[in-house]
Amino acid sequence: MSRCRHCAPVPEGVRQAAGLLEGRWTVSILWASYEGASRFNEFKQAVGEIPPRTLAQRLVELERAGVLERVVIDARPPRVEYRLTPAGRRLQAVVDALVRWAGA
Amino acid sequence: MSRCRHCAPVPEGVRQAAGLLEGRWTVSILWASYEGASRFNEFKQAVGEIPPRTLAQRLVELERAGVLERVVIDARPPRVEYRLTPAGRRLQAVVDALVRWAGA
Repeated sequence: MSRCRHCAPVPEGVRQAAGLLEGRWTVSILWASYEGASRFNEFKQAVGEIPPRTLAQRLVELERAGVLERVVIDARPPRVEYRLTPAGRRLQAVVDALVRWAGA
Repeated sequence: MSRCRHCAPVPEGVRQAAGLLEGRWTVSILWASYEGASRFNEFKQAVGEIPPRTLAQRLVELERAGVLERVVIDARPPRVEYRLTPAGRRLQAVVDALVRWAGA
């Protein structure tokens, strides 16, 4: 590993992507979505001790980041599902790599 | 993608690994180490606006997590380097996957 005398600055894209994963529980929420969770209670069940308000906030952040898509199901009563977008599915490679590293 | 009626809880290993990446700037520090940074100022140069005290704290966290190893170089004056451990090098797969996802 050669040392960098003048280290290149971290690219903005890496900072933004890293920023997404910095939210507490975000990776766990992503993991749950890859396991099939799509409703609020399913995420709550998988992630466990996350406060409901924080879970709601993380779902909004993931929606804004284009990772999840909020879909209202016309049922009685209406239901809300958070589905993976194509970008969300592509992000699975990162979570899978983390799972392998963790030896989970 | 089949839905999980009863979603399995997120494995502890995933939570811990995710916890490591949740520290602000941690992924950027890792990125810099894969680019060859090993001294405090090199990390500071690559990551940019990180406060020195936060950088010091992140380096300690990465050391505790077994990702970086702090080495004192017997020079005049003595120098300190933060080198990747085998586990640290294995974590590069996660950062590389994130960089690819970010299209950086």
